[in-house]
Amino acid sequence: MTTTVRAWGVKENRNHVELVEIERRDLREDDLRVRIEYSGICHTDIHNAEADLAWLFVPGHEIIGVVEEVGPKVTRHKVGDRVGIGCFVDACDECDNCRIGETSYCDTGVVTTYNGLNKYHGETEHTRGGYAQQIIVREDFALKIPDSLDPAAAAPLLCAGITTYSPLKHWGAGPGKRVAFIGMGGLGHVGVKIAVAMGAEVSVFSQSDAKKEDAAKFGAKELIATRDGVPVDEYGNHFDLIINTVSAEIDIDSYMELLRLDGTLVQLGLPSEPLSVGVRTFLQKRRSLAGSLVGGIPETQEMLDFCAEHGVVADVEVIGADYINEAYRRTIDSDVRYRFVIDGDTF
Amino acid sequence: MTTTVRAWGVKENRNHVELVEIERRDLREDDLRVRIEYSGICHTDIHNAEADLAWLFVPGHEIIGVVEEVGPKVTRHKVGDRVGIGCFVDACDECDNCRIGETSYCDTGVVTTYNGLNKYHGETEHTRGGYAQQIIVREDFALKIPDSLDPAAAAPLLCAGITTYSPLKHWGAGPGKRVAFIGMGGLGHVGVKIAVAMGAEVSVFSQSDAKKEDAAKFGAKELIATRDGVPVDEYGNHFDLIINTVSAEIDIDSYMELLRLDGTLVQLGLPSEPLSVGVRTFLQKRRSLAGSLVGGIPETQEMLDFCAEHGVVADVEVIGADYINEAYRRTIDSDVRYRFVIDGDTF
Repeated sequence: MTTTVRAWGVKENRNHVELVEIERRDLREDDLRVRIEYSGICHTDIHNAEADLAWLFVPGHEIIGVVEEVGPKVTRHKVGDRVGIGCFVDACDECDNCRIGETSYCDTGVVTTYNGLNKYHGETEHTRGGYAQQIIVREDFALKIPDSLDPAAAAPLLCAGITTYSPLKHWGAGPGKRVAFIGMGGLGHVGVKIAVAMGAEVSVFSQSDAKKEDAAKFGAKELIATRDGVPVDEYGNHFDLIINTVSAEIDIDSYMELLRLDGTLVQLGLPSEPLSVGVRTFLQKRRSLAGSLVGGIPETQEMLDFCAEHGVVADVEVIGADYINEAYRRTIDSDVRYRFVIDGDTF
Repeated sequence: MTTTVRAWGVKENRNHVELVEIERRDLREDDLRVRIEYSGICHTDIHNAEADLAWLFVPGHEIIGVVEEVGPKVTRHKVGDRVGIGCFVDACDECDNCRIGETSYCDTGVVTTYNGLNKYHGETEHTRGGYAQQIIVREDFALKIPDSLDPAAAAPLLCAGITTYSPLKHWGAGPGKRVAFIGMGGLGHVGVKIAVAMGAEVSVFSQSDAKKEDAAKFGAKELIATRDGVPVDEYGNHFDLIINTVSAEIDIDSYMELLRLDGTLVQLGLPSEPLSVGVRTFLQKRRSLAGSLVGGIPETQEMLDFCAEHGVVADVEVIGADYINEAYRRTIDSDVRYRFVIDGDTF
């Protein structure tokens, strides 16, 4: 027994989002049935939509919804609660990393919200995401959404929010620290707001000056245009932490030189080619190049509570489901400020 | 007025170490005159000797000696004390990094023991190192050598010791931590001993099995031969810290995969070419690639005291000055266990 629901997805080898029907499983004893209110559009959705997958792909891992039904052993949530679902829907719970709450680094393998295979339940169908009327999820992977957060604007926090919050927290962003973001798009603009709320001095590196006013509005100290190159002379040995939200190739050696002693440049995206890095800059100030992948479930809840406390949400443009393909095109063209969110009533 | 002393160096464009005469400055008020007892041979000496420098180059930055004369304002040392001099003989004292004791990362520029230009005293001649009868040094850059340390075997601690101690300390080597060294030569063998003394579980990656017994003798848990590649299957997600003492090209992506969550691979040497690194492994477990450069003066004293407490010194082969060129050849061929140290009486 399953439930048939409307969803928007990409049929095998079609490269185009359209209305489809999918089956949602019956509730296991620790499952929630969530009616989806909003679903954010993340770049990763688009990469996957373009990937010619050999199955019906339903994107969406920035999900806000309301609990409609709970399994008999559910204790964390109740019918009527507003919850969020992010990039993961299951993990092993038992490895060293799961045990300390670092879900996204599960050694056995995290189950992603879409295109994942849930080996922990012997599933053979790929998971399908949040561009759908409803989703079934293990209660431990649903986050509580504080009442004060606007649900549409909170949706992107489930991916863009935690993906920037986690490295900011891990590498100690806060008062007295200088933090820079490379790129101020969907991820970057949320990251800037969070870093400002943490008390850091925040700078933004952007190709042009076009987002200067927005950067100021988000609380950044400055936007530094990099059209003519990375300003090593002016900003050498300056930052404690640089977070690169851009997947395109950047001048990594020059950015490394902008870090002061013990500074770290954190990659959030995956460039298509290996990076070529000169190690001299690393040695000169004990600098580090690191990567960070989303964040754990406990930390995601912490992030949501932090955002509620500090009034941080994404800047969003709410759209209907029939606009998804156009929204993808505009996202690729960086023609969105700053995140599209799909209204769940239109699925 | 200067003092002429015998030294061993490389004349302009000669690429061969020979007996020369050099001038040592008269004592400034905070200077020591040190009679050199031992001077270690570091790979960096050899790189510089091969570099066709346009001045008389006197190598040596692993120096042990006895104070023979002190300037009128010297307070830290007295005549008769045994002292050590490492890679640096001056720094600005005033930048953020100097103020916290991180001498080697001086923002204004550290003055290296050889081939440095001491801008802090308007000097126009390059500094000359420890292959000499004596050296004049600012007292703040001379370390106290604990009585229990054998002076010949302690000489390499001034470079190899601090260069490995500093990253071990910084990245938290100790009980419960798994540390690996890539390469067990001059640097690596001292690093292994220090990491073992810190309480870490220590592994060694080496091309062949040839140093297996030595690794065990130094307290390492194991030596892993990498002739057939880096054993990713067996050691994936295993180490907290990997310290690469090898300047030659290594399979960096595979080594990164051996790090567990939040693990760091630290480069101590400079490969001749930029590294090509795949970032995926960084993201998967929040791994970092970092560099480390020697260590500060206060930390060097701490390291010497630590080594005295734990009975750590280098394994050395003491030679006469007329053997330096042969020792260079053998060092290049890795035919030394593990560090040549020149007897100062033969300069």
